[in-house]
Amino acid sequence: MAKPALYASLILSLILIFSLSSESAQLPRSSKRNPPRFLHPKVFNSNKPQLLRTQYQYETRFFTQRLDHFSFADLPTFRQRYLINTDHWVGPTRLGPIFFYCGNEGDIEWFADNTGFVWEIAPRFGAMVLFPEHRYYGESMPYGSRDEAYKNATTLSYLTSEQALADFTVLLTDLKRNLSAEACPVVLFGGSYGGMLAAWMRLKYPNIAIGALASSAPVLQFEDIVPLETFYDIVSNGFRRESTSCFNTIKKSWDVLISEGQKNNGLLQLTKMFRLCRKLENVDDLSNWLDSAYSYLGMVNYPYPSNFIMPLPGNPIKEVCRKIDNCPDGTEVLERIFEGINVFYNYTGAVDCFQLDDDPHGMDGWDWQACTEMVMPMSSSQDTSMFPAYDYNYSSFKEWCWSDFHVEPRPTWITTEFGGHDFKTALKMFGSNIIFSNGLLDPWSGGSVLEDISETIVALVTEKGAHHLDLRAATPEDPDWLIEQRASEIKLIEGWINNYHQEKKAIFEI
Amino acid sequence: MAKPALYASLILSLILIFSLSSESAQLPRSSKRNPPRFLHPKVFNSNKPQLLRTQYQYETRFFTQRLDHFSFADLPTFRQRYLINTDHWVGPTRLGPIFFYCGNEGDIEWFADNTGFVWEIAPRFGAMVLFPEHRYYGESMPYGSRDEAYKNATTLSYLTSEQALADFTVLLTDLKRNLSAEACPVVLFGGSYGGMLAAWMRLKYPNIAIGALASSAPVLQFEDIVPLETFYDIVSNGFRRESTSCFNTIKKSWDVLISEGQKNNGLLQLTKMFRLCRKLENVDDLSNWLDSAYSYLGMVNYPYPSNFIMPLPGNPIKEVCRKIDNCPDGTEVLERIFEGINVFYNYTGAVDCFQLDDDPHGMDGWDWQACTEMVMPMSSSQDTSMFPAYDYNYSSFKEWCWSDFHVEPRPTWITTEFGGHDFKTALKMFGSNIIFSNGLLDPWSGGSVLEDISETIVALVTEKGAHHLDLRAATPEDPDWLIEQRASEIKLIEGWINNYHQEKKAIFEI
Repeated sequence: MAKPALYASLILSLILIFSLSSESAQLPRSSKRNPPRFLHPKVFNSNKPQLLRTQYQYETRFFTQRLDHFSFADLPTFRQRYLINTDHWVGPTRLGPIFFYCGNEGDIEWFADNTGFVWEIAPRFGAMVLFPEHRYYGESMPYGSRDEAYKNATTLSYLTSEQALADFTVLLTDLKRNLSAEACPVVLFGGSYGGMLAAWMRLKYPNIAIGALASSAPVLQFEDIVPLETFYDIVSNGFRRESTSCFNTIKKSWDVLISEGQKNNGLLQLTKMFRLCRKLENVDDLSNWLDSAYSYLGMVNYPYPSNFIMPLPGNPIKEVCRKIDNCPDGTEVLERIFEGINVFYNYTGAVDCFQLDDDPHGMDGWDWQACTEMVMPMSSSQDTSMFPAYDYNYSSFKEWCWSDFHVEPRPTWITTEFGGHDFKTALKMFGSNIIFSNGLLDPWSGGSVLEDISETIVALVTEKGAHHLDLRAATPEDPDWLIEQRASEIKLIEGWINNYHQEKKAIFEI
Repeated sequence: MAKPALYASLILSLILIFSLSSESAQLPRSSKRNPPRFLHPKVFNSNKPQLLRTQYQYETRFFTQRLDHFSFADLPTFRQRYLINTDHWVGPTRLGPIFFYCGNEGDIEWFADNTGFVWEIAPRFGAMVLFPEHRYYGESMPYGSRDEAYKNATTLSYLTSEQALADFTVLLTDLKRNLSAEACPVVLFGGSYGGMLAAWMRLKYPNIAIGALASSAPVLQFEDIVPLETFYDIVSNGFRRESTSCFNTIKKSWDVLISEGQKNNGLLQLTKMFRLCRKLENVDDLSNWLDSAYSYLGMVNYPYPSNFIMPLPGNPIKEVCRKIDNCPDGTEVLERIFEGINVFYNYTGAVDCFQLDDDPHGMDGWDWQACTEMVMPMSSSQDTSMFPAYDYNYSSFKEWCWSDFHVEPRPTWITTEFGGHDFKTALKMFGSNIIFSNGLLDPWSGGSVLEDISETIVALVTEKGAHHLDLRAATPEDPDWLIEQRASEIKLIEGWINNYHQEKKAIFEI
């Protein structure tokens, strides 16, 4: 069994970059705007069960990496952590595959512990399993410590996706050479940001990896490739499909919140009504806390009970809406909201009072990435979204990044480096062997690839799936569509490896 | 007509990285060893005709580039020069192609003036022509000036091929956006190191370019992918196929040189015998001067008279060997060598005395690249080569790089980043639309791709071709095989563009 609490990091691995500040047509919202940020499981600390020991066996090793792979500047090296298991590997002479998980923005042990799929299928493939950590996360810190690495824009400046991909590539090349395993095929795995890395690595380093399973990877969530409203519209539709009145209540609630907050003692009233541990200082903190929950609910809207970021019932959005809708007639909007939000933040009923995110401006690796390369513009539509209407404003975003990090974002870099509007054409004409798997309930699915691009670049879409459930360990509760999705993935990966073996054999025979 | 003198840079664009120091079985050679270096046309200054004005029309522009694309370090920007001609471009609505020459290690005007093929075919394709300059060359200097850019290892540290490719990519993306030409297909061209860049750019940025013509691009001349003796063996075979006695005379000459040099007044005698302008200080300078000439002769061993690095007869190696062989019986070895070398260094007979390379240690961009990424190991075989036997020694090479640049080479980086031993498999399984064109007389051909890899990654090999002649402007003297080679290239490029147009049309229609 996988450890539910640990899974938080996987589910959250790519998360709400934008907490909405909001303006409505009726009432002006305050101008305070939460920064793009990586909502770490720490946000939910008070509700989080104890971490359990990992169930998967691996050896932890470290590999010395250059800080900048693309220049010869005289910079310190750092030690990249990676987890390795060779128990089932059939070795180089039989061209045993290497399953390589592209570590994302967090401690690699979390990802290893919550990517059961890779561990479970490795034996049947005779595969080695590798989980390298992403630089600047977990124990893979440049400059000796997290404090030093996160000190300022200069020390952080090498926290980029291309550097991370080069880390992976150099590590793999060295490891294969040491094991005389140069000819062994590498298959990439990744979920969320890790899935983006897997797809990009297959694209950029076809010499290194023969294929990639990119689960819930919003590689198109940049510039205006997909409509800016996509993310929040998907979340909103998830609520509307359960109940129009639920959707409407939430949509209405933001203005009610503001007007309540503006009353005498309004913030104190809200503090009591929402059972907050500390007095609310402004309404936005509460709004952000609520809309984070709705967005997470979109991601973890699984069809059976789960315990990833929170202990939650199956179809948690349905449950939230049931609570909102089923209050006695005459119940105020905000009381309904509170009933609903309890499903997310307090399903076990163990919470006495709620802590809002206490450190929204804390220096987080993903905040940095969002302020540099991972600029994912999002708006919230006045018409179609249940969230406060918000028009993405790059200038404000840029100002925030400057004030917080003294760095200027490069909003068009990712699309230049990895492909943007023409990504699909480029993949179709040049690429092969990538699976984009997505669940349509996942708000990130709107920024991913949902149609087959070619015979070998395929989309596996599940109507009822949410955020990269396919990478989880199998459970007895898995619905048929999930079992089938994983079977399809295995079959495709088998195909890649067989083709590669045939290719190699043909070359050897020449 | 193209300008012959300017062509020097094109022909020399990728050159002898290793001048041989040598040890023979019979006589110990001195331990002095010339560094890897970029033999610039300046070496041949005394023989070089006046530069003529360019015959091609273009506008010169500058584009502001980041110094490090892959980090957010606070570094100065620099101005990249590029040449542009839109006279024949049919524009964005008709998806007019963009022909993009990947500038290599030198002034981009030289390359523009000597890549007539691109200019000549642009009108029939309705194509825009772009010649961007490679950073740290010509007028594209970081830090404001060449002196500042070449000051030390820190300022030079961003002179890498990946940064250059990112420059190209960012420039193209910006330019296309400004012209609303995002959908216009880009075709890459490049010769020698520029050809390597073109192939690598097609591989790394399939989102940016639909295909690449990589002429004489030794993408496999790294590590031990091809035998280390390949380069000098090809040069040597070029001589042996003309005359075994010529080959033997040259092979014998190195020891004779040494023993002459060791005699009383030996260096003075050699100075006189070889009509040097200044007294020879050691035999190695003369050896290097001779073996450079032989290697260049391999590259420019064209079937008709040319004037690229030197005014030369057609089949210049045949001519050199005729001179060496046809001396009266009893002529000493070194006298024969002198007769032969005159064909290369003094075909017009206008030279009074010869200048050896007067600045072999000068800080040159290619020297830096060879000491960092472009580590191309080469040996010279005692048995099969006519050059002094030499075993490549990485330690010595590394020491030299340290003493000269204070930088440590990364000999396995290029193969990690762009593919090495598995380059062909990766291209076959992942790539498309690359032409590797090579002439088998060219010593660099041994490090390139000489067989079709797939239906769309093809090798165009000409038996009698030398270093990227196909990129030159057409002349009335072009042999049939060269005309056919260019016609094949045009046909393939047409195919890429047609496919792309169909693809786009299909997408538009959806």
